[in-house]
Formats: sequence, C-alpha cells, structure tokens
Amino acid sequence: MTDRCRARDFGLAPGIFAPGANNAITDVDGVAVGHVTLIEGDATRTGVTAILPHPGNLFAERVPAGLAVMNGFGKLAGATQLTELGELETPLVLTNTLAVGRAVEALVDWTLARNPDAVSVNAVVGETNDGRLNDIRALGVTRDQVLAALDAAVPGPVAEGCVGAGTGTMAFGWKGGIGTSSRLLPAALGGWTIGALVQANYGGVLTMDGVPVGRELGKWYLKEHTDRGDADGSVMVVIATDAPLSDRNLARLASRSMAGLARTGAAFSDGSGDYAIAFSTHAGVRRDARRRAGQADVADWPNDRMSPLFVAAAEAVEEAVLNALTMATTIVGRDGRTGRRATGHAIDLDALRAVLRAHGR
Amino acid sequence: MTDRCRARDFGLAPGIFAPGANNAITDVDGVAVGHVTLIEGDATRTGVTAILPHPGNLFAERVPAGLAVMNGFGKLAGATQLTELGELETPLVLTNTLAVGRAVEALVDWTLARNPDAVSVNAVVGETNDGRLNDIRALGVTRDQVLAALDAAVPGPVAEGCVGAGTGTMAFGWKGGIGTSSRLLPAALGGWTIGALVQANYGGVLTMDGVPVGRELGKWYLKEHTDRGDADGSVMVVIATDAPLSDRNLARLASRSMAGLARTGAAFSDGSGDYAIAFSTHAGVRRDARRRAGQADVADWPNDRMSPLFVAAAEAVEEAVLNALTMATTIVGRDGRTGRRATGHAIDLDALRAVLRAHGR
Amino acid sequence: MTDRCRARDFGLAPGIFAPGANNAITDVDGVAVGHVTLIEGDATRTGVTAILPHPGNLFAERVPAGLAVMNGFGKLAGATQLTELGELETPLVLTNTLAVGRAVEALVDWTLARNPDAVSVNAVVGETNDGRLNDIRALGVTRDQVLAALDAAVPGPVAEGCVGAGTGTMAFGWKGGIGTSSRLLPAALGGWTIGALVQANYGGVLTMDGVPVGRELGKWYLKEHTDRGDADGSVMVVIATDAPLSDRNLARLASRSMAGLARTGAAFSDGSGDYAIAFSTHAGVRRDARRRAGQADVADWPNDRMSPLFVAAAEAVEEAVLNALTMATTIVGRDGRTGRRATGHAIDLDALRAVLRAHGR
Amino acid sequence: MTDRCRARDFGLAPGIFAPGANNAITDVDGVAVGHVTLIEGDATRTGVTAILPHPGNLFAERVPAGLAVMNGFGKLAGATQLTELGELETPLVLTNTLAVGRAVEALVDWTLARNPDAVSVNAVVGETNDGRLNDIRALGVTRDQVLAALDAAVPGPVAEGCVGAGTGTMAFGWKGGIGTSSRLLPAALGGWTIGALVQANYGGVLTMDGVPVGRELGKWYLKEHTDRGDADGSVMVVIATDAPLSDRNLARLASRSMAGLARTGAAFSDGSGDYAIAFSTHAGVRRDARRRAGQADVADWPNDRMSPLFVAAAEAVEEAVLNALTMATTIVGRDGRTGRRATGHAIDLDALRAVLRAHGR
Repeated sequence: MTDRCRARDFGLAPGIFAPGANNAITDVDGVAVGHVTLIEGDATRTGVTAILPHPGNLFAERVPAGLAVMNGFGKLAGATQLTELGELETPLVLTNTLAVGRAVEALVDWTLARNPDAVSVNAVVGETNDGRLNDIRALGVTRDQVLAALDAAVPGPVAEGCVGAGTGTMAFGWKGGIGTSSRLLPAALGGWTIGALVQANYGGVLTMDGVPVGRELGKWYLKEHTDRGDADGSVMVVIATDAPLSDRNLARLASRSMAGLARTGAAFSDGSGDYAIAFSTHAGVRRDARRRAGQADVADWPNDRMSPLFVAAAEAVEEAVLNALTMATTIVGRDGRTGRRATGHAIDLDALRAVLRAHGR
Repeated sequence: MTDRCRARDFGLAPGIFAPGANNAITDVDGVAVGHVTLIEGDATRTGVTAILPHPGNLFAERVPAGLAVMNGFGKLAGATQLTELGELETPLVLTNTLAVGRAVEALVDWTLARNPDAVSVNAVVGETNDGRLNDIRALGVTRDQVLAALDAAVPGPVAEGCVGAGTGTMAFGWKGGIGTSSRLLPAALGGWTIGALVQANYGGVLTMDGVPVGRELGKWYLKEHTDRGDADGSVMVVIATDAPLSDRNLARLASRSMAGLARTGAAFSDGSGDYAIAFSTHAGVRRDARRRAGQADVADWPNDRMSPLFVAAAEAVEEAVLNALTMATTIVGRDGRTGRRATGHAIDLDALRAVLRAHGR
Repeated sequence: MTDRCRARDFGLAPGIFAPGANNAITDVDGVAVGHVTLIEGDATRTGVTAILPHPGNLFAERVPAGLAVMNGFGKLAGATQLTELGELETPLVLTNTLAVGRAVEALVDWTLARNPDAVSVNAVVGETNDGRLNDIRALGVTRDQVLAALDAAVPGPVAEGCVGAGTGTMAFGWKGGIGTSSRLLPAALGGWTIGALVQANYGGVLTMDGVPVGRELGKWYLKEHTDRGDADGSVMVVIATDAPLSDRNLARLASRSMAGLARTGAAFSDGSGDYAIAFSTHAGVRRDARRRAGQADVADWPNDRMSPLFVAAAEAVEEAVLNALTMATTIVGRDGRTGRRATGHAIDLDALRAVLRAHGR
Repeated sequence: MTDRCRARDFGLAPGIFAPGANNAITDVDGVAVGHVTLIEGDATRTGVTAILPHPGNLFAERVPAGLAVMNGFGKLAGATQLTELGELETPLVLTNTLAVGRAVEALVDWTLARNPDAVSVNAVVGETNDGRLNDIRALGVTRDQVLAALDAAVPGPVAEGCVGAGTGTMAFGWKGGIGTSSRLLPAALGGWTIGALVQANYGGVLTMDGVPVGRELGKWYLKEHTDRGDADGSVMVVIATDAPLSDRNLARLASRSMAGLARTGAAFSDGSGDYAIAFSTHAGVRRDARRRAGQADVADWPNDRMSPLFVAAAEAVEEAVLNALTMATTIVGRDGRTGRRATGHAIDLDALRAVLRAHGR
C-alpha cells in the first residue's frame, strides 16, 4: 500500500491558514521527532515516539509548557509538575499504555546521564492503548527502545501513520497512527508557527474537513447501539510554537486541540484519554539557570492577541489526525485482551476520494 | 422575516441520534424555560432567559450539576460553589454581561421569597456580551425583568432566535440568539434524554453539519487578518438530562458541549467565554432535606456507560447553535461602545440552502 | 472597649519575618483600603471593604492576579475570568453574601464611569456570611455604599475589627472582622513586601501562634458533637505583593493563605468558603494598553525563589486573623435567620493574656 | 535508639477527636500497609510502602478516591485518571522520586497477573525525594522490591519512622519518615473512622501541636536567609475512611490534609510536592463489575455533614507527621547529589520534652 498520501494531497485542507514547509510539528524551528517502530512476530505492534523541543540540554534550559485534559482516562506521567511549574524539563515521549513505567525510567536515565547534578526529573510520557492490534500485556517496549527513539529524533519531515507510538493504534475503526501538521500565521497576526503531532487512537463518527466520511462509508461509533469501548483508546496531542507564550497561554493553546479533535468527529468517550501539551521554543521564554536564579525579563505575547493562535492550533490538530488516517497502512496483529488475530484496516483512499467528491470537495 | 425555520427543517440534522418531541431542552421532563425580550427605542436589544430544572422548590430540592469552562473570559456567577458542592440551588439565568449583578440580586430575592429560612443563596447567572447591537452600557435590564423571565418559564416548545438573552447576540458575523435541541438515547444505551440550550454570541468559521457555510458565504473570522474581537462575545450552554448522573459525570457531560461548539466552527477566541452547565432531573439524585441530613442511597449511572450521553450532548449543542442562527431575524440596534447604529443580519436561508445543496445535502 | 489592641502588641507575632511599617496590606506601595461600616437600627450589622491595587485606572492598567480556593462554598464573583486571564481589572470588593449582586453592579458602574469605551467588566467581589449578627435577608447594602467604600480607600494604616465587610462577622465563636498584616523579606530573599487582609468569619478550634486558646477558653467547634454550621461562614483573603510574579505564581502564593488559616485552627468546614486572591503591584508586570497590544518584556521572579514569599504569605494571613479577633469589639445585632437578638462577643483580652502566659508566651 | 516513641506517648495529641485502636490508617477496616526498607552499603537508604484499600481484587472492585494537590512539584503517577473517574484501581505505592517508573511497572505487572483481561491499568505511585541521605541517582529500587512491599501488606499496627518509603526522608531538618494516625468520630457525627499515613520529607518551621519546637531547638527553614531547597523534598499523604463518600467529597477530604501539614509548620515550598489521596472503603460505594455495568444505588454521606470528617482528617495528618519525626532514628547515608556522607539526625526526644514542658504541655 505504497499509495498512501497526506490529506492535503487530495484536497483535505481544513481551516484558513497555510501550513509550513514540512506541514509538520518540526516546522517550529528546533523541534525534532524520533520514532522507534516495533513490529515483531505476529503480536507486537507498538512503538515509541519522542518529541524534543530544542536541541540543547532540556533539563538545563527548560521550555514553558501547558497541559489540557479533555478526558483524563489516561496514564500521562508528569502532569502535575508540568502544570505547577508551567514547564517541561524532559523531552516528550509517547508510547503504549502499559509501557509508561519503562518510558519514565528511560527518560530519567537519559536525563541523569546528561546532568550530573540532577536528583529530580519530571519525565513526561503520554500514551494511548494499542491493545486492539498489539499484545499489550506482553509489555514489549524496553528502556533501550525508548532511548533509541530519543536518539532518532531529527528535524525536518516526520514519518506518519504506522510508526513509533502509532504503530498499533486505531482511529474511528480504521488504522490510525501518528500524524502531524502545522500552520503559519500571517505577519499581521504575529507571524508565528504552530505545529501539532497526534497519536490518534480514538473514535467517534469520522468527519474529514466537515465531510461525514464515517457515515458514508458505513462505519461509526454506536452504529449498533452498543456502548462498549469502540471509541476508546485515547489521543495524545503535542503542540509546538515559536510564539513567546506564558505557560498559562500555552495551556489555553493546548485546550484548543480539542476543537480540532471534535471536528474529526471525536466521541470523547469515557475510555479515551484526550490530552494535549503545548510548549514554546521562543528564546525569550526559555528557563535557563540564569533565569531560574533571580529576576529576569521574559518575552510575552498577550492574551488579547492569542485568538489566531487558537484557530491555528485547532486546524493543525485536525489535519494531523487526517494525516494519521490517510498515511496509515493496514496492520495485522493480535488483540491484547483475547489474543485473537486482528486486523486494522487502513481507510480506502479511493472510497474516500469518492465520498469527498460527492460532497463537493 | 416570518420564513425562519429550524435547522432540521431544511435537512441540517447533525449526529446519529434522534431528537425528542420538541427538539428542545424541555424534552427533559420537568424543565421549563422563560424569556423576557427587551427591544426598546433604538438602542435596547437585550433580554433574560431563565431555565428551571424542575417545578418544585429548587433551593429545597437541589439538583446535581457540573460546570465546564473552555475559555473563562466571562462573568458567570456562582461557579465556585456549583463546582464545590456539585449542585444547583437556584434556576439558571442568562442575560447580558453587564446585567449579571442585577440578575444575581433578582435570583436572591426570588429565592428568599420562597424560603423563609434561607440566608445564603448561590445564584447562578451566565451571560454573553450583546454590545454589538445593544447599548449595553445603559444597563437596561432590571430586577423585575429577571423575575418576569422566571415567572414566564414553561415546559414545551421553546422560542428561539432573537428572544430573551439572545435578543442582541451575534454569531459568526450573523445574528445569533437562543437555540435549543435534544437527543433521545435508544433503550440499549440507557434510554435517557439529553437537552441543550445555547445563548450563541461567538464566532469563528461557520460550519453547519460539516458544510463550510462561512467560507462559502464569504464571511469568516480572521478573513482580513486582523485579530480584533470579531469572534469574541461568549456562549453559554445549558444541558439537562434525566439520567441519574453524579456531579462529576455532569461536569464531564458539560465539557462535551465544547465538541458541539467546535463543530460549528467556533474559534474559542480569547474574548469568548465558553461555558457549559449540566444538571440532572432524575428523582434519585435530587438533594432534598432528607438526603442532606444523613446517609442516603443515590441513583448512579456509571462512568463506563457515559459515552453515548457524551455523543448526544455534543450533537444537541451543535444543533442548538444551528437553530439559533436559522431562527434569528435581522435586528437593528446600536453598538454599545461607539453608539453607532448597527445591524445584525440574519443568515439568508435561501443562500444557505444553495450552499448545502452544493455540498451534497 | 477602647482597650482593643493588635496581636503583636501583646506578643503574638507568628512566623519568622518582620512586618512592614503599618503591618498592613498597605505596606505594599500603592495599595489602598476603604471601609463603609453599616450599623443601623438594631439589625443591620454589615458593610463593605474595598481594596485598590494601585491608584491608577485599574481597568486600563491591569494587575496580574491569582486565585486559590480551599473550599468553594461561596459566591465570589469574577472567579473564572480572573483565572483565565490571570488578571484583575477592577478593585476588589468584600461584603456580605447576599450583597454580591449589588456590589457587582456598583463595581461595573464605577468602572464604566472611568472608562468610556468599556463594554465588558469583570467585577471581583468576595463575601462572607454575617447573618449571625446581621439581618442579612433585609439586603441592607446599597450600590452607593459600595461606591463609598471605593471612594474611602486610602493608603496607610487600615482600620480593623468591626469595620467594613467585617462589621457583622464572627470567628471561632467570637466576634471576628477585618484584620491585616504584612511581611518584609530580607534583601537576600528578594526584599519584597507581602501584605494580607482578611475578612474573618469562619470557625474551628482557635489557635493563636500555636497556643490552644479555644480549648483553654472552653469554646471550640464540635465541642458538643453537633455538626451544624458553627464553623461555617467563610473567609476571604487578599494578598498583595510588590514582587514581579506571574499569575501562576500569584495563584500559588494565594494558596499559601490556607496555611495561615490552618494555623489559626480553621476547620475548613463544608459551609465555609475559603478563598484567597493575590495580586502584584510591580510596574514590570502591569498590563497596560501597550502590553496588551503586542509582544512585550515582562518582569518575572522565578519558581525557584518563591518559597520565602510562600512562608511570608502564610505568616501575614495568620497574623491578620489574630488582629481581626483582638481588634473586634462586642456587637449586638439580630440573627438573620431567626430574627432573634444575638451578641457577638469580642474575645476577652485579659483572659487571652492569661492563656498565653500559661503557655510560655 | 530504641527509646523512640509515638507523639501521643509524651502528650502530643493534636485535635479534639480520639484515635482508633492502632492509631493508624489500618484502623479503617480492611486497609493494609506493607513496607520494604532498603538500607544497603553506605549509600542506599530508600524503600517502598504499599497501601491496599481492601483485601479483594482492587482492579475488579474499585474504591472511589479523590486527589488534592497543594503544590504539584512531584511525580505522582496516575493523577489524571484518578481525578477523571474518581477511583483507584490499584494499591497505592510510595517510593523515591526516581523510582516511580519502576513502581509503575511493578504495579502494572501485579495487576495484570491478577486480572487476565486487563489491558489498561492506572498505577498510582507517589514519591518524595530522599536524595539527602540516599544515593538516589543509583536507582536502587527494583520491580521485585515493589512487589515485595505489596506482598508484605498487613492490617494492624504500622511500622513508622525509617521504614519503607520513609527510610531516607528528612523533615524540618531532622530525620523524617513514615507516620500514621487515625481518628474516630462520635456516633452523633457519623461514627466514621478516618486514618492517615504520611511520607514526610518536607520542611518549614517545626511546630508540634502548636509548640514552636523548631524555633526553640534552633533549627528552621530560612534561618540563614538563603532560600535554597532546605524545605523541599515533598510529602505524600494517604487518607482512608469507612464513610460512604463520593469521589468529590473524598477530594475535599484529601485537601484538608493540607491543614494538618500547615499546623506542623510546613513551608509548602516551591520544591515540595504536597499531595493527598483519600479513598473510601465503604461497601456501598465500591465499584464492582455489576455497578459499572448499569444503574445502581450508591451510598452517600452528604456535603452538609462532611465538616467533622474534615477536622478529623487534618488532625490525623498532623499527628502522623509528629509520629514520623518521633519514631525516626538517626540515619547515616550519602547525599545523592554530591556523593558526600550525610547524616539525618533524629529529633532528640529529651530536648523535645523539655521544650514541650516549657510551653505548658
């Protein structure tokens, strides 16, 4: 299925702003992404994705950050300190639900190795549950694989679909995965870049740029009037921007991710942990040793001019989810609960094109 | 403009569930709604809408309730106690931003008059800013008008559009107002009713059941790349249900309103206060004197079966906003800031029909 | 009872830091406090206290602010916007529970009068319930009295005890009221000033600088093993500082008030709304029109150096409560619920001195 | 130092309620506590403490729970799901800051082993930083040691001081550790039991039942006017009760822990994560498979009668901290940052007795 393409390639371009050069979170200068994809035997379908806000020492030069939780059915590590201090001191790591412990260990090790004085590390690890295709109870992710994802992080184009932490995820009943997108604001609105990356593993009634694709293709949550779990699984969103935002405004920005998810038809079901973390890479807000030692002047973009960033974040998240779906390929694995063979079918792009055409796109 | 009709009348029926008999918040048994519409002289375009969860003494027989705040740029009165105790002890009143003080006074008076022992009243009053069409600085809402809205509350069909607290509101650049809708869950999913009422006064890029109406009609937020306030103004959402929900699950239900708003194209801009309050009318969760005096058994619908209610709430909110737009009529008033004559144009239903047709609806 | 004195005058000096010149919130340069005390007939025992963060136009030159809620059984107006934007745009007004609506109206009027373009005003009004001594159902506070408190605000020494919003309040079974205190940090810890003002109307087991005064004087909450309301009533705390704090760190600072209250023996009972609002007067964090229009550099005191301010805030709040008790005089009024004559006895300072001596103070 | 004793043994009995039989969290029927104490070589001074709410299958029969965060500088795992669903589905494990990842792994393994269908586990792990006496960077806690703590859990008396997760902790400059206490409410107030367990590793100005012990013994935070870290380190509080509380009221109960900590003189410093988790063991609130599958009746103790429980929780927490200090023995280890030999001196009980006597105790 080498014919997969990004949503924008067949005209799905939600929103009003243009994307950046790579249409990826890495359009925010300095941001790097690394994947480790684990497809082993007939049952391991999982992985790790790491997002590094900048190439320096993240523990020494922290970035302000904010968290939004739409539905907290998830195991996100590091939530309370991120919120209390308004900052990230490690990379962000995404993986599967049951691998969070190992990923925390790995991030701690990684940080200790780079910071001989560190005795406290707030590892931030997000997750979704890939147990529909992955033998999640086998706990297949190792500490070394997490470290490998961190090592693999690079700027530039980002692999999407069945890679990294998206290897075994499902979305809306189709194969989901990792997706990314970005937006550039016009100079009059600040000229900032906003990038998003999603680990899409949730459900609902799939809508693509407003088109009721799920209904048209005959697959949607609650179609059969049984409410057991089809839309569950979670979604992790990461937002990066080069705007000099306070941690409070980053939390507000993160919360707008939920608008992007909503527009894809998310059910925000009980069993879906819907989280977003936003951070700023702007040099004027970075928290280095000097700034942490005493009074400093900090760059700040005001409340009154946040709205365009909010719109851009929602758009980028929406398109990132579309990319996850259109780039994902069919994966055969095993259901982590039953051990039965299970297939995550990629959405059929020809059928999708037909639906889009029928709706005037 | 007597040709206004509800969204569903020309085929806009978002979501997967069917509405109730009135397609209104009053489909939840016991709920009543009252409006006072204030159109006076050339500058007063405002009003009051009251929602009563049940016909009894609300202070003596409290309903569990939950609050969700997407963007807290608003003057909602009663927020902290509602959240702390998880309950409502007054009706909900909606009005304009600068009339909240008077509405609180009126709700306190109304409650004291009915409860000779009351010395503490948590009046819950929501608002949006109708200052684009209303001389809001003139403070035109009186205590008696608030009481009149409470007195006017009735079950059954609910007037929509330019009535009550929606008299002077705008949405997406068109005339907004009050809208309502409801959903019935199939018996297999609990058989509950979920109703929504919105006071729509916000903006973004209007999308109606997925169709990019704003883009097609040439009117959207940030079209001109200036970020000053067009999407501001706020939206208040009220959700009622007869499901026996805990206050925590009501807060979760309320938060799903944001998905409905998002699907209409909401910008969730800095200057828009986006709030939702959900309450349950189920007799088994009502907090009367007996229950407040000691241990009691309380009916409870579990976390694991909340998802269909979440979906229904988002749908009802989406459709309520559509109704606000299609039922609103053109209003001429005065800008509250400049004092200049201003017109809130109702969305043209013929143009709208044409757009919908072009998009396969 | 002209012999009332402040806690420090007879050796009650909680904590490790020294107070400022007035030992009052007004030791933070620019802060002004005004009281209107309403003692009329045999039943009105209430009032209004206004706190102005600086002498300029507060709506045009906003101060960053943070809110902490220990127990949200209260009617604080303005909570959600204060938190969302992290700022105050009006003075703070304190009054009784049922007068919040009128105080909001008055603050709106006051702000509109000074700002011809204002169409949205987030009035912040706190309250406690003085219905044990005040005929609170008679709704005795007028809009003009609120305006009078704003007009009366001055820097310098602050009247305490049965004044302003503390006229009819009770604390720990004795007459409570308004109290204030401040702390100066040594230069090595930043040299900042932290001031606190409390409207004390709550209960528990009175402890003064660690001495179990309530137990020794035979009066404490739950002594009779009946749990009805004796400790209820609420407390509002206002914290001012000249340190350049972010709104997030102001919210953290506000939360430390709860430590000061706890040390007085607060029960934090179900019916006590325990709130604190902190703001910064530092010029480098003020949000004027220029800052709100685009990118700016903002002064910031870092997380890592907040701890001494936290300690100072707790101390100042503790001492402010002690001052409220030792400065309050006996008041005879009427119970707002029963209409019966009621007396709020001031704590006996001779008895108090004896207890303190017996405990080695 | 076999002369260590509990606070109550020499007259320190804070509060107004009596303790239970063991004066321990295990006075709440069904609760079990297990410790693994790791003292190895000259540098490992750490451990694990496990708290089991009941002897059954915790994943299948969940207990409602609530979380309170005073200062979120900590790595608590499981926070968001606990709050979203209002429940615990694993035991609570406490350990050191850098061992959280391993403890999460262990709790996941432990739960998977007992629940063949489980594919999602919200492991709740708290921590404090014992790096002043423990070579914390060496990551000395293994998965097996965590499992051993779970296996070791028993009802009845609870070991205190330098055991389990308190092995290497410091409090107020002295050796800290694990402490526990409980309170019984009189029948008229419900007759409930409230138990607390603390992992005390924080600082401030030590106050014991009101007596300024820190000042009198010449050791307190900020004595030297340098603000670097002495009060940091964190405290984890666990509260158990047999009252049938909703998750909301459990969160409120948890927050009252902060009053208990405040009365010990806690600085609530920037670098101290101050967390409390409360759960109910009442059969009528337990969430088993039947209750999670559909509507059920749930026992509920009302808001209006929570106040005595709030008072009891604060008392139990205060006494638990006192017990941690008076039961801890001197420990010699190594500073985790510098590698230098370091001694955590137990508080001298003779000196303490003298101070108490001088203050009339």
